[in-house]
Amino acid sequence: MVEKLYVTYNDVHKLCQESAQHILENFKPHLIIAIGGGGYVPARILRSFLKLPGSPNIPIQAIGLSLYETLPTDAVVEEPGTKVTRTQWLDLTSLGEMKNLIGKKILIVDEVDDTRTTLEYAVKELQKDVEAARQKIGAEGEGSKTEFSIFVLHNKDKQKKGSLPEELINEGRYLAARTVGDEWICYPWEAVDIDEHDEFARQMKARQANGSS
Amino acid sequence: MVEKLYVTYNDVHKLCQESAQHILENFKPHLIIAIGGGGYVPARILRSFLKLPGSPNIPIQAIGLSLYETLPTDAVVEEPGTKVTRTQWLDLTSLGEMKNLIGKKILIVDEVDDTRTTLEYAVKELQKDVEAARQKIGAEGEGSKTEFSIFVLHNKDKQKKGSLPEELINEGRYLAARTVGDEWICYPWEAVDIDEHDEFARQMKARQANGSS
Repeated sequence: MVEKLYVTYNDVHKLCQESAQHILENFKPHLIIAIGGGGYVPARILRSFLKLPGSPNIPIQAIGLSLYETLPTDAVVEEPGTKVTRTQWLDLTSLGEMKNLIGKKILIVDEVDDTRTTLEYAVKELQKDVEAARQKIGAEGEGSKTEFSIFVLHNKDKQKKGSLPEELINEGRYLAARTVGDEWICYPWEAVDIDEHDEFARQMKARQANGSS
Repeated sequence: MVEKLYVTYNDVHKLCQESAQHILENFKPHLIIAIGGGGYVPARILRSFLKLPGSPNIPIQAIGLSLYETLPTDAVVEEPGTKVTRTQWLDLTSLGEMKNLIGKKILIVDEVDDTRTTLEYAVKELQKDVEAARQKIGAEGEGSKTEFSIFVLHNKDKQKKGSLPEELINEGRYLAARTVGDEWICYPWEAVDIDEHDEFARQMKARQANGSS
C-alpha cells in the first residue's frame, strides 16, 4: 500500500524558508519561473524569503504545464503521462523577447519532482528559447550564459522518465527540500477539509516520532 | 493606530472554499486569471474547489501587475501608487491570440482589493484585448460577449482610486470573501515566523470573540 504523505501549508512555508538561504547563496536567481498550478504557492512564499532588504522583489513568471495522460486506447507509441502540454508560456513582451533572460540566473520552481517529465520539458524548452534569443542578438562569452536552477518541495526517489541536463545536477543547481519515497503526497491546496488534513499530518508526524511509521 | 489583521493559510483556504459555491453557481468561469504574486495562492486553492467530478480543471493564466510607487520628487502629475506596470501578461499563443477568450466567462483573482487600482487596470486592459480580438474575427451577438468577474479574499471598505465597470458591480460579478476596514492585512506568505503569525491570528480571533477588539 502506498503511504500518504500529508503536507500542511505551514510545512510548505517552512520548507521554502529553510531552502531560501541555500538558494540565495548558491543560485542567486534574477527571476523565478513558477510551474503552475503546483509551483504557484511555493514560488510566492519563496519570493518573500528571497527578498533582500533594500532590493526589489525577485520577479516571478508563471508557466502552465500539464501532463497529458494518454488513454490506454490511444497509447500506441507514447508512454502514458509523458506528453506535456503548455497552457501558458513566458510573456515575451515583458521579457524583451527573451533578451532579458540572456546571461541571467533563473530558478524554476515546482511542488514535486515525480517522474521528472514536466521538469525536463520546462528546462529543455526554456534553454531552447534562450539559446535562440542569444543567437539572434549574437551575444557571446561567459556573460551571455543563462544558468537554470531548480527548486522543488519534494523529490520522489524513484525511476525517472525525464532527465535534466548533467551540468545542472553536477553543479548542484538542483534542490529538493525533501527527498521522499514513491509516496502519495497530499498537498494542502488539494484538501477538501483542511482541518482534517492537518490532523492527518499531525498523526503522521506522531507515528514517525514514535518510529512506528 | 491601524489594526493588523492576521490571516492564516487555513483562513485563506476556507475563504476560497466558502466562496467556491457562489462562483460555480453565478460566475461559472471557463478561465481563471490570477494576478500575481498575491493572486497565486487563492487561485490555486480555488481551482481545487471549482473542479467538478468528471470535468477537467479550470485553467489558470497568471498575469503579473505591480503598482509603481512614484517617488515624491517625481510626483508632479501622477498620484503615488497609481501607475501599474505589467511584469507578465496573458500568453497569447496558448490562448489562440485571445480568440479563445471570446464569449467566455473569466474570473480574475487577487488577494486584496485595496485602492482598486490594480483591478481596474486588469479589467480594462483585458476587456480591451478581448474586444480587439473580437473585432478582428468579426464575432457578433450575445455569444461573443466575454464576461469578467472578480474574486478577492478581502475588500477594504475605503475610498477607492480605481473603478470597475458598472455592469460588473450591478450584475453581481464582484465577490469579496470578506469586507474589512482599512486595516493592515498580514497574509501568511509574507510571514517570517509562521508559528508566531498563527499565534497572533489566534489571539486576534480570541479578542474578537470576547468583543474587546
